[in-house]
Amino acid sequence: MEHIKRTHITAPTQFLEANGIRLAYRRFGSDTGVPLVFMPHFRAGMDHWDPAVTDGLAATRPVVLFDNAGVAGSSGETPDTIEAMADSAAGFIAQLELLQVDVLGFSIGGYIAQALALRYPAIIRRLMLVGTGPRGGEPTHDPRVLEYGASTDPRTGESSLEAFLYLFFRPSETSQAAGKAFWNRRHLRRHDVDPPSSAQTMKAQRAAINAWREVRGERYSELKNIKQPTLVVNGSHDIMIPTINAYVLSQEIPLAQLIVYPDSGHGSLFQFPALFVAHGAMFLDGST
Amino acid sequence: MEHIKRTHITAPTQFLEANGIRLAYRRFGSDTGVPLVFMPHFRAGMDHWDPAVTDGLAATRPVVLFDNAGVAGSSGETPDTIEAMADSAAGFIAQLELLQVDVLGFSIGGYIAQALALRYPAIIRRLMLVGTGPRGGEPTHDPRVLEYGASTDPRTGESSLEAFLYLFFRPSETSQAAGKAFWNRRHLRRHDVDPPSSAQTMKAQRAAINAWREVRGERYSELKNIKQPTLVVNGSHDIMIPTINAYVLSQEIPLAQLIVYPDSGHGSLFQFPALFVAHGAMFLDGST
Repeated sequence: MEHIKRTHITAPTQFLEANGIRLAYRRFGSDTGVPLVFMPHFRAGMDHWDPAVTDGLAATRPVVLFDNAGVAGSSGETPDTIEAMADSAAGFIAQLELLQVDVLGFSIGGYIAQALALRYPAIIRRLMLVGTGPRGGEPTHDPRVLEYGASTDPRTGESSLEAFLYLFFRPSETSQAAGKAFWNRRHLRRHDVDPPSSAQTMKAQRAAINAWREVRGERYSELKNIKQPTLVVNGSHDIMIPTINAYVLSQEIPLAQLIVYPDSGHGSLFQFPALFVAHGAMFLDGST
Repeated sequence: MEHIKRTHITAPTQFLEANGIRLAYRRFGSDTGVPLVFMPHFRAGMDHWDPAVTDGLAATRPVVLFDNAGVAGSSGETPDTIEAMADSAAGFIAQLELLQVDVLGFSIGGYIAQALALRYPAIIRRLMLVGTGPRGGEPTHDPRVLEYGASTDPRTGESSLEAFLYLFFRPSETSQAAGKAFWNRRHLRRHDVDPPSSAQTMKAQRAAINAWREVRGERYSELKNIKQPTLVVNGSHDIMIPTINAYVLSQEIPLAQLIVYPDSGHGSLFQFPALFVAHGAMFLDGST
């Protein structure tokens, strides 16, 4: 029997039960090494990653994609706080019997990754926080962000290409072209794909994001308790979670390194997948 | 006759005449590729670089160190404006018959590198701006910076180890240990070394730095005219040229990438030489 190499496109969707919820996940990449668990953006499931990023990082480590409670292919309700989402993610990691993982959190996934590192420090080795910000960070002032963020293409039940090009990329020709190339890569997987996330997920995630954006206690003070080596990444001009928030994360997390890519926005990891993979692998395998 | 491989430690000091001034320089590294010209910090000459950085980058490209007019082993007077220093550097590059170079400018060397890119754009391919800031940037508020910056160890005529550990590194045990290791590497070259820079150089560089720190015209607006791909690097907590200036450079230079290293200061490239060399080579050889 032939064994097809598992990749972003071919890895079968699997399921496990955690806290009474059936969670969808996929594993691929190396058999050995510390697994890297991906936590995606608003409304996103496993199919919203860039195969160039996931397969790129999977070349040198195991990679795990999953849909958190209620999201996309997972059952249950999406909770309405970042903390509860982190609890659910911790349950998933425990059920997979992974003793320690690296976590790449993108956007709201970066909020959850921070909460996970604060609530379950022992299970996280290294953190990558991409296109994200601290609790109580600097808000966007772009009026179209909310509008586009909530829009749904009726044909797919998902955000449209137009919304992605506006929200994740810059207006420059280079960035828009990179956005379209990303969009094509993102749709290369055509079988065994996730259903779109529900309206309930969107509403609960929105509530969680709004709560996260409120300052709690001394602003940014919880970040000093993230002890893991952390790589913070964003594009130079993120209109969703302004880039200054990446700078703040890197100033306040004691062992944080910051990388900001040129002429790019929220989706910088999708605009520069090869560079991001090289920088990311260097960080994950490094001593700094 | 045996040919000794030229390195940071063994490359002989050479001289050329430019505008009536005898400039000291050293070349080593690959025979082919775009040469990388290093521009050092306040008072520094060719011996103030870290061999781990210069030899590391020289592994894959030609490297040129030089003392600008009046500095260390070069004759003449040090001019008292950044622009005149850039003119002198451009003369040096022309005299070496280098058609196009990459430039790594550190601290005041980063100011000169910016002026060079603005005044002589055709000769600069890529820029690395390390531990530096824009014209009219955010000043330091640390009262000891000026005091330490001007101090001279009477035994050597140079800044002391104590001053370097305070100015270039953080108080943490890790950073201080890295500072001492850097200091040891920096003194590995024992023959054919530069004389210390003169009091005239110190005074002129101080005047140039003070003038550079004044806003001229619309703040930061000249940065949009730096068209070269640029890598901006600093430590997370630079007390000499506060790290926010690196962020500003990366926001305003159109094709800038930013890397900020953890738990480090002005001398981050000397604290993380291997990582800096890997990031730097990736940038210099990259398409982004």
